[in-house]
Amino acid sequence: MTVLTKKLTINGDRLNANIDRLAKVGKLENGDICRLAFTPADLQARYLVQQWMSEAGMTVRIDAAGNVIGRYSGRVEDAPALATGSHIDTVPSGGPYDGVLGVLAGIEMVRTLHEQHLHLDHPIEVIVFTDEESSMIGCQAMAGTALLQAPDRYRPKIGGSIEAHLETIGGNWDALATAKRTKRDMAAFVELHVEQGAVLEQFEMAIGVVQGVVGMRRHSITILGQENHAGTTPMTARQDALVAAAQVILAVQQMALRQPSQPVATVGFLNVSPNAANIVPGRVDLMVDMRDLSEACLNEMEQQLADTLQSIAQATHTDISIAPVLCVDPTPAALLIQETIAQVCQDSGLGYCSLPSRAGHDAMEMGRFTDMGMIFVPSQNGLSHSGQEYTSPEQCTQGANVLLQTFLQLDRLYPL
Amino acid sequence: MTVLTKKLTINGDRLNANIDRLAKVGKLENGDICRLAFTPADLQARYLVQQWMSEAGMTVRIDAAGNVIGRYSGRVEDAPALATGSHIDTVPSGGPYDGVLGVLAGIEMVRTLHEQHLHLDHPIEVIVFTDEESSMIGCQAMAGTALLQAPDRYRPKIGGSIEAHLETIGGNWDALATAKRTKRDMAAFVELHVEQGAVLEQFEMAIGVVQGVVGMRRHSITILGQENHAGTTPMTARQDALVAAAQVILAVQQMALRQPSQPVATVGFLNVSPNAANIVPGRVDLMVDMRDLSEACLNEMEQQLADTLQSIAQATHTDISIAPVLCVDPTPAALLIQETIAQVCQDSGLGYCSLPSRAGHDAMEMGRFTDMGMIFVPSQNGLSHSGQEYTSPEQCTQGANVLLQTFLQLDRLYPL
Repeated sequence: MTVLTKKLTINGDRLNANIDRLAKVGKLENGDICRLAFTPADLQARYLVQQWMSEAGMTVRIDAAGNVIGRYSGRVEDAPALATGSHIDTVPSGGPYDGVLGVLAGIEMVRTLHEQHLHLDHPIEVIVFTDEESSMIGCQAMAGTALLQAPDRYRPKIGGSIEAHLETIGGNWDALATAKRTKRDMAAFVELHVEQGAVLEQFEMAIGVVQGVVGMRRHSITILGQENHAGTTPMTARQDALVAAAQVILAVQQMALRQPSQPVATVGFLNVSPNAANIVPGRVDLMVDMRDLSEACLNEMEQQLADTLQSIAQATHTDISIAPVLCVDPTPAALLIQETIAQVCQDSGLGYCSLPSRAGHDAMEMGRFTDMGMIFVPSQNGLSHSGQEYTSPEQCTQGANVLLQTFLQLDRLYPL
Repeated sequence: MTVLTKKLTINGDRLNANIDRLAKVGKLENGDICRLAFTPADLQARYLVQQWMSEAGMTVRIDAAGNVIGRYSGRVEDAPALATGSHIDTVPSGGPYDGVLGVLAGIEMVRTLHEQHLHLDHPIEVIVFTDEESSMIGCQAMAGTALLQAPDRYRPKIGGSIEAHLETIGGNWDALATAKRTKRDMAAFVELHVEQGAVLEQFEMAIGVVQGVVGMRRHSITILGQENHAGTTPMTARQDALVAAAQVILAVQQMALRQPSQPVATVGFLNVSPNAANIVPGRVDLMVDMRDLSEACLNEMEQQLADTLQSIAQATHTDISIAPVLCVDPTPAALLIQETIAQVCQDSGLGYCSLPSRAGHDAMEMGRFTDMGMIFVPSQNGLSHSGQEYTSPEQCTQGANVLLQTFLQLDRLYPL
């Protein structure tokens, strides 16, 4: 069977036709796609996908979080599943590939096996996670990280309660804990996704082998200086909160550039008070967002930031306070899966490189309880969350074939 | 008479009692004073001041700009006047000294002469300028710099037309040109004012000899970068408008610190777009405000700013555009008046230092057509435009005595 599986390829035309078909659901006049979770467009997409799952030979169930789980039986039916999937909800102005590619490539992979009357030893699951773009309730419930006591934290922006919305899509808030999975029933999860960045395009690589999903530390910083007349206050007598903020912004940038693991660090939010041309700023509020795959690097940057703020406060005669706002641990991808994907690329003659995922994904939560891996395909100009998002049909097909070959390999590598 | 004039001093108790009396007009419950031009409080203060002018032996007239002009006859009645004065309108939350001290010290100086039956060779004028805190229509009309064709530019923030408001206070918009004065009828103008800064207090000086009123250049700067995902965009691929803005802020500060004339330069206004923690800023709008006594310094800083923006744009891969918003020429004080004030301080044993005025004043406009000088007294903690504004009774008295002695000297120095 080794010879056969090497030749096995998915039907690229069918995959891309399905991507185009799904892109019609929720399409706006300007070409963007608006398929927010729990809306009629999301429901319509869910029914379409369930139909395709059935045609691919899968049984379909909905868990308490509303996740759609298609299951293709394995030759050893009580073996832990090898799972894939992603999401089909979009941001308010989304594109055709984000999430969708991972779901439809998973279904196409199974359909290819089904057409050849092939089954792996392990069962395969293709999962559509609920509301990835906002609350991430689907993947969190599956990972057991959902806040069961705080339904308000999952309240959709479209209004209404999460309880009611879950019921609409076949879920059940009160039974949310039952959606939790373990490594015993899911040996590995591999997600195919568009990069949403420009690294693959820049290096002309077909495939990205994801090293993991970066962790995030977000801090809120308040700088208190002394509001003063911009005419009558000599430069040397000032406590200018914005001058201090400028030093913080540049220090944050330099801090990230110095780290060997190539983290990102951003000041994206900044408010000046009182914000008038003729008044020395008395107060600045800003946010620092730091992301990296390495927890050690995040810790070191956090410490450097604290030290830097102290020196800047002294040098500028300001008071600077810092408070954590958000802390997400990095999720490393399993080395076995990374190596398998890389080997598949080599065997297929596809250019590939390793890179971190700097955006959150359903796979991040899966990585909290089982082996996780991700396969990236290029995003034109790095664009995503936009109707302009584009990955060519060839690139989508290549990604799905790498997913298929990876599953064939993992089936041999994971115990039954 | 030389011996006599050296001994002549104003009545400090009376001066400070009048300051306290005027502070009651427009006083708010929180202690701030709200005496906006053209309001009933402003009118009430004008009538009070006119009464005091009359008691001091002056004739009073109102010019077309509503300026109240008290005139104390000279021994040579057709000699050009030596003038002083300031304003009695306040900002919405003002204090008791800003403007008021200059007006009431001028009246007190004349009253002191009048009590002693003394007249200078030159006539003395004490002027209350209209609406210094906002439109500056009073001093501009007198300097001939008012925009006679643009009444809307002088529209008061309290509503209504400038034409109607001028009529209320005895002025006449249609005759505004008649308020214009020349060096032939006003040989010099000397204004006593609170510093509104902390230089005198810092150096423990009783008197500031003002070198001139600084000029101002204000520019609006727009930085266009590329809005991007703060997670997926590598540091080296960013066009971060806020990183560019931070470099601008620090360059503006350093530019001012390097100049020997000690100018001030401020970024007081800055807006980030889209201003979200997880988005690399695509656009920043900011304002740069530069002030100095030296036009050459302002020109040099303007050129440096343009050069710096170009380097920053290149280094950060952003587009930076700059547009002038405001340009006010510096007004130097007449050297003869500066030297006279300094000599008076030496003779009186008062500590003094030279400094520029970094805020605008009525004297600035007077300096456009005649010799101008200013005397500063300390502001506690540099505070002004606040009910907390404070200058001690002793300091007010010292300032008024320096004004009196300066007039006695200038009377000898200026041709009749």
